[in-house]
Amino acid sequence: MEWRDVYADRMDLIGDTAVIELLKLAERPDVLSFAGGLPDDATFPMEAMKEVAVQVFETHGSMSLQYGPTAGYTALREWIAGRMGPVEGVTATADDIIVTTGGIEAMDLIAKMLLNPGDVIVVEAPTYLTAFSVFRCYDVDFVAVDIDDEGMRVDLLEAQLSELERRGKRAKLIYTMPTFQNPGGVTMPLERRRKLVELADRYNIPILEDHAYAELYFEHAPPPSLKALNPDGVLFVSTFSKIFGPGIRLGWIAAPPPVIAQLCQAKLGSDQCSSTLGQRIVYEYGRQGLMDSQIVLSRALYQAKRDVTLDALAEHAPPGLAWTRPDGGFYVWLTAPEGIDSTAMLAWAVEHEKVAYVAGPSFYTDGRGANQFRLCYSFLDQSLIGEGISRVCRSVAHHVERRHRDRIGV
Amino acid sequence: MEWRDVYADRMDLIGDTAVIELLKLAERPDVLSFAGGLPDDATFPMEAMKEVAVQVFETHGSMSLQYGPTAGYTALREWIAGRMGPVEGVTATADDIIVTTGGIEAMDLIAKMLLNPGDVIVVEAPTYLTAFSVFRCYDVDFVAVDIDDEGMRVDLLEAQLSELERRGKRAKLIYTMPTFQNPGGVTMPLERRRKLVELADRYNIPILEDHAYAELYFEHAPPPSLKALNPDGVLFVSTFSKIFGPGIRLGWIAAPPPVIAQLCQAKLGSDQCSSTLGQRIVYEYGRQGLMDSQIVLSRALYQAKRDVTLDALAEHAPPGLAWTRPDGGFYVWLTAPEGIDSTAMLAWAVEHEKVAYVAGPSFYTDGRGANQFRLCYSFLDQSLIGEGISRVCRSVAHHVERRHRDRIGV
Repeated sequence: MEWRDVYADRMDLIGDTAVIELLKLAERPDVLSFAGGLPDDATFPMEAMKEVAVQVFETHGSMSLQYGPTAGYTALREWIAGRMGPVEGVTATADDIIVTTGGIEAMDLIAKMLLNPGDVIVVEAPTYLTAFSVFRCYDVDFVAVDIDDEGMRVDLLEAQLSELERRGKRAKLIYTMPTFQNPGGVTMPLERRRKLVELADRYNIPILEDHAYAELYFEHAPPPSLKALNPDGVLFVSTFSKIFGPGIRLGWIAAPPPVIAQLCQAKLGSDQCSSTLGQRIVYEYGRQGLMDSQIVLSRALYQAKRDVTLDALAEHAPPGLAWTRPDGGFYVWLTAPEGIDSTAMLAWAVEHEKVAYVAGPSFYTDGRGANQFRLCYSFLDQSLIGEGISRVCRSVAHHVERRHRDRIGV
Repeated sequence: MEWRDVYADRMDLIGDTAVIELLKLAERPDVLSFAGGLPDDATFPMEAMKEVAVQVFETHGSMSLQYGPTAGYTALREWIAGRMGPVEGVTATADDIIVTTGGIEAMDLIAKMLLNPGDVIVVEAPTYLTAFSVFRCYDVDFVAVDIDDEGMRVDLLEAQLSELERRGKRAKLIYTMPTFQNPGGVTMPLERRRKLVELADRYNIPILEDHAYAELYFEHAPPPSLKALNPDGVLFVSTFSKIFGPGIRLGWIAAPPPVIAQLCQAKLGSDQCSSTLGQRIVYEYGRQGLMDSQIVLSRALYQAKRDVTLDALAEHAPPGLAWTRPDGGFYVWLTAPEGIDSTAMLAWAVEHEKVAYVAGPSFYTDGRGANQFRLCYSFLDQSLIGEGISRVCRSVAHHVERRHRDRIGV
């Protein structure tokens, strides 16, 4: 077989292996890694999870190994819907919920449902890098809207939508993570959320609200979700990856019931249904209140890690290095002085300082972000974060210094 | 939101809910159903599965809840590869394997990797109906090649490929289930398999070999897989749905390593990785030999059910009803006299005889199969199969009789 002759065109669009290569670097055991966005294993109460799994085998029996409905295990859908009231301020029933194979499948099903080749999709700049792996498969055009410390700049979005309209085009989807954004670590305040949903509604553009980290807040609960502000126009995506465990590969979409029916059609040809066993474990675990208590402990753990991270940055950062201050979630977004190349710096940092992160350009559609990078503080052992941050800061200082020498021609 | 204004064009291609409606009919508790292709729950040894799950929690610890590699849990990939030698006659290592979220995701990843809009894909006529849910998303043109009692008619395929070539087109993929075909119940003999792989190789067309039922043989093991006959040109897809349990949602693709790398890129944007917990349970279960003993018992159970089914058909079938005689798998394919409409007959059979099946047209690209239908004997309790078959036969006899009356104008 001449395999190269048969691949679909979309494989050229998703063939960027740079991220995979960088993440491999970061997996070297001698490297302190702020790269992957993994939850801390310590947040998985293994004994409780095992007991629930045993209960599922004993009480659900063979149903836990049989096919399940495409929309998901009904009792789990009811439990998710019921919880969206108190947690999100969203009124929902099981009919508003489809269970997915993690947040990525949720995004893929939405893309499959909405996106024709050449369609325009709005993303934040920077945005969640794996979202590119999803959306690029659909051969879409990206409109990237900058974030600031309050999330997506809705004023810029408005200008972009208006400009698109002048050109006779319309965006098909707005992808946003308004709460504890990945990679920005920033959160959109209520007033801007209102403006965003009003704007999307005016242009009849669905919003994909990525809610992955929103329950992992620190001092204060975040503002209401976009879904709470406009239940009909928002496709709310969340995941059990950060509040239970990613290995279970389960998430969900909340959307109006006719949209759920379309998503089920899309899911039939994606994986037919999500793991029945996983769904029943998550249901029993959640029903017994164990997820809520896990979340309380996770918040405290990640807040402590965030604090160590910010304290270490304040202590070690060289002049000219700026960073965001997350109120929840996993990420700090750093901006080094202009001229610093975070990709080249990463190779140096792994080699000379045994520390890793993800370089900025991976989070942009257009190669920007050369002097930016993401630190994920959720996974690294808390006792190592301070040392890791000092290594990052030394790497930046070294490159700032080198650049200075280059400039003055030493 | 005006949702109807925003759906992608592909939703028109996959929006056929006829199958879903019919399957709902078949779920009525008073109906004996030969409709869904479900394994018998009795083939899941729940106690052993529970013990293995406990072992996974106790020995694999938090790794069983954390993210895993996109290609799959390495030890599982090694185990799958190692087993393909003795079971399939295929030499493979972990590098040849990607673990998928069931057989459907396996097919979807292959479609994503290969198919541009307007590409031609060869399918069997009739073929697995959920394959349409996968392939139609990619806006492809189907070439349907009839089966006979020895599977896909390779002589017709050759004529079709030659005709395509004359028109300057080339098929991008041949989808076939050579062993215990769904819905045909037929198996391709070795000589025809050789011709098929030679033909595909000559035209440089990858074969997607769907191996879902091949381990569930009765008297004799089936001929070697297509993969064994041409390791480089065949994308071998199998699933744990029928040999472990479908609720675990795990399957795999065996393909050359550079192709596996492409499939991993596609999977990143589909669901990132398959269930880590599920993969570790399947690995431990398989490693301990439990899957192999489960398969031995499953073969005996399904063979007994097949025998009851064929005996009952021989006893009750009205004149003019023909059927296939499967050597393994779950399905018998029936052909009633011309003029019988199996879709209309299904509504009548559910109502008057409390029995269900899947009508023929769902298995064709072009609406053929009006007088055909599929019986799945795997799920119904063995003690009810005889009664179910007699109800099916009465339904056919009633419709043959009615058609006869219509014809002679009574």
